[in-house]
Amino acid sequence: MEYTKEELEDLKNFYKNQLLQDTLPFWFPRSFDKVHGGYLLMRDRDGTLLDDDKAVWIQGRAAWLLATLYNTVDAKQEWLDGSKLGIDFLEKHCFDLDERMFFHVARDGSPIRKRRYFYSETFTVIAMAAYAKASGSERVADRARRLFGKCLEYSADLSLLPPKFTGYRPSKAIGVPMIMINTAQQLRETIGDPRCDEAISKWIKEIEQDFVKDDIKCVMEQVAPDGAIIDHFDGRMITPGHAIEAAWFIFNEAKYRNNDPHLVGLGCRIIDYMWERGWDNEYGGIYYFRDVYNKPVQEYYQDMKFWWPHNEFIIATLMAYLLTGEPKYASWHRMVHDYSYNHFHDKKNGEWFGYLHRDGSIAQTAKGNLFKGPFHLPRQEWHCWKMLEDI
Amino acid sequence: MEYTKEELEDLKNFYKNQLLQDTLPFWFPRSFDKVHGGYLLMRDRDGTLLDDDKAVWIQGRAAWLLATLYNTVDAKQEWLDGSKLGIDFLEKHCFDLDERMFFHVARDGSPIRKRRYFYSETFTVIAMAAYAKASGSERVADRARRLFGKCLEYSADLSLLPPKFTGYRPSKAIGVPMIMINTAQQLRETIGDPRCDEAISKWIKEIEQDFVKDDIKCVMEQVAPDGAIIDHFDGRMITPGHAIEAAWFIFNEAKYRNNDPHLVGLGCRIIDYMWERGWDNEYGGIYYFRDVYNKPVQEYYQDMKFWWPHNEFIIATLMAYLLTGEPKYASWHRMVHDYSYNHFHDKKNGEWFGYLHRDGSIAQTAKGNLFKGPFHLPRQEWHCWKMLEDI
Repeated sequence: MEYTKEELEDLKNFYKNQLLQDTLPFWFPRSFDKVHGGYLLMRDRDGTLLDDDKAVWIQGRAAWLLATLYNTVDAKQEWLDGSKLGIDFLEKHCFDLDERMFFHVARDGSPIRKRRYFYSETFTVIAMAAYAKASGSERVADRARRLFGKCLEYSADLSLLPPKFTGYRPSKAIGVPMIMINTAQQLRETIGDPRCDEAISKWIKEIEQDFVKDDIKCVMEQVAPDGAIIDHFDGRMITPGHAIEAAWFIFNEAKYRNNDPHLVGLGCRIIDYMWERGWDNEYGGIYYFRDVYNKPVQEYYQDMKFWWPHNEFIIATLMAYLLTGEPKYASWHRMVHDYSYNHFHDKKNGEWFGYLHRDGSIAQTAKGNLFKGPFHLPRQEWHCWKMLEDI
Repeated sequence: MEYTKEELEDLKNFYKNQLLQDTLPFWFPRSFDKVHGGYLLMRDRDGTLLDDDKAVWIQGRAAWLLATLYNTVDAKQEWLDGSKLGIDFLEKHCFDLDERMFFHVARDGSPIRKRRYFYSETFTVIAMAAYAKASGSERVADRARRLFGKCLEYSADLSLLPPKFTGYRPSKAIGVPMIMINTAQQLRETIGDPRCDEAISKWIKEIEQDFVKDDIKCVMEQVAPDGAIIDHFDGRMITPGHAIEAAWFIFNEAKYRNNDPHLVGLGCRIIDYMWERGWDNEYGGIYYFRDVYNKPVQEYYQDMKFWWPHNEFIIATLMAYLLTGEPKYASWHRMVHDYSYNHFHDKKNGEWFGYLHRDGSIAQTAKGNLFKGPFHLPRQEWHCWKMLEDI
C-alpha cells in the first residue's frame, strides 16, 4: 500500500528524531577517547564499556559519520572535532609499514591483527574524504585520493593481498565491487575524483553480469571469475544484506544519472529477488545467509537476524518506492521498518541490539564490538531522513 | 541419583546399539570414495551428499574411528579397508611441500585451503597410529611417530606456524595441550612411544597451572603466557566443551596411573566448574561459549547448542561417576544424555543433527560439513560402551 504524504512526513521526522535523539546520544560524546584519540565503541546495552580495543573499520566509519553530519546536517564543532579525533588516530596508528592497514588495534593504537582484506582502507577513504570536505584540509583530501588509488589496485588484482585459499578454485565476492561503488560515490560527492564515474560503471556492470542471476532470481555472494555458480557450501551461500546494500548504491548511481531507468530497474530486480529469498515468512526479519538451492548453510549463525541487513533493507525499499512509486516497495518498507524498530531498537537505552535469534529474541546485548558500531543504523536514519527531505 | 547395576547395563547396551545400528550405518559404507580414496562425508539429514569436498580433520578422524573399531570391537575387513582408504588419501594428497598439512581439499585431493594450525596433523597422527596397529604396518607406525614429532615441535614453539596476530598481546589456548594429551594417549595405546608419558604430564600441569582458575571456579579457553586472564572479548570467552574434553583426557590419564587421585580430582574440578557455567538452566543443553564475567560474547553463535560439547559432557560425567561414585555426576550424566538424545538424535535417519538454536530447535539439518563428521558422536558411544563393559 502506498504511503500518503503525511505518512512520508511522519517517517522523515521519525528517522531524524531517532538519529539525533536516540542513536547519536548513545555513542557521543562518551565514546571520544580524549587520551589516545579515536573512539571507545565496544559498549554494552547501557553504554558500559566492554573492551577498550579499537576496530579499525569502525574507527573509520565513525569518523565518516561525524564528518558527514557536519557536512549535511549542522556545522557543529563537536562533530568536526570528533571526526578529527578518528582521522588523526587512523593516520597515526592504523597503517602498517607496507601502507596496508590493520584491522584491530589496542586503545593506544598498538596493532593486534591485520587481515587479508582492504575494508579498513575503504572505510578510511570515506572518512578522510568527508573530513577533508568538512575541514577544508587539502592534505587529508590528498591522502584520501591516494588511499583510494591503493583500493583501486587491490580491487583490480586481489593477488596483491595475502591469499586465504590456494588457486585451485578461484572465486570473486560481491563485497569488492559493492564496497568500491560506495567508496567512489562518497569520494565523488565530498571532494571529487575524476576516476569515479568510469570505475563505478565498471563495478555495476560486473555485479549485473556476474552476480545477478535472472534465471533463478538470485544475487550471488561469490562466483567463479566468469560468473559461474560454484556448487559447494561457500559458493552456494547468499547474503541478502550485501546484495541489498549493492541495490541502494546502484539507486544512488541512478539518481546521479538523472534517474537512469536501467539502473533503477537493476536495483529493483535485486530487491525483488532478495526480498523473496531473505525475508523470513514465519518470524519476520531478514535471514543472514541462505543457500541458493535451499540446502543447509554451513555458517552457524545463518538464520540469525543481524541489525545491519535490516538497515540496508529499510534504505533500499524506501528508495525503490520513492524512485518507482510501486506500492509493493512501500509494503516491504513498512514490514522491515516495523520489524526492526520493534525488535532491534532498545527503547530504554537507545540504539539497537545487534544480534537476534531467528525467532526475534535477543541473542546478546552488545551495542558495539569488533564488527558493530555507529554506522549502519545512523547511516540508515540519516539517509532516509535526507531522502524524504528532498522530495 | 546413583545408577543401579541394571541401569548401567542398559546404558552399555544403548550406546553399543546406537553406535553399531544407528550412527555407523548412517556413514558407512556409502561414504567410502572408491574413485578418489578418502571419504565423502558432507551429508544432509537423509544422507544426501551436500558437497564432495573433503575436510582433512574429518578424513583423519574417520580413518581413526574405523581402525579403532577394528582394534577394539571386531576385526571386520570393511573397517580395516575403510581405514586404509583414508590413510592412503591423507598420505597422497593432504601434505604440502613443507610437510605441513592442508585443511580443505577437493574430492580428488587438490588443495583448497591450508590453515595456521596443526590440528590436521594431530588427527592424522591418531589415524595412522590406530591403522598401524590394525594393519601391522611398521611404515605407517613410523610415519605416525614422525608426524607426532612435528606436532611436538609446533606445540612447543607456535612461532613455527604462520601467526594470526601481531606479538602485542601474546596468548595461548587450551586447545593445544588438550589435543596433544589425546594425541599422545592414542599413540601410546596403539603403537607405543617413549615420549608420551612425560609430555602428557607436562600438558596436564600446564592446564592445571595456567587454565584452571580455582578462585573463580572457571577453566579459561585462552590466557596470557603466564596464565593471566586477558580482559578483552577473546580472552574472556570460555568454551565448556573444550574444557570438558580436557577433563576426560585427564581421567584417561588417571586410569593409566592406577586411578591417580590428584588427576581424578582435577578432572572433577573441571567438570564442576564448567557444568555450572555451561549448562543452560532455562532450556537445557550446553552453551557453546560463555564470558568468564558473564558479559556479552562477541562470537555470534555463542548460545547455540552444538552436538560435540554434549558428546564430551556425556563421556566426562559418566567417567566421573564411575571413578568417584558421586551421585551428582550420575544426575548430570542423565541430564545431558537425555537432552542430547531427545534433541540432537535424528530418529528417522540416524546420527545427530549438529546445530540447535538455544531453545533446542534445529538450526540446520546437515550431518556432515567442514567441521562435523563421524567422530565426536561415534567416539562417545564407543567410549561409553567400552567403559561400561570394563566394570
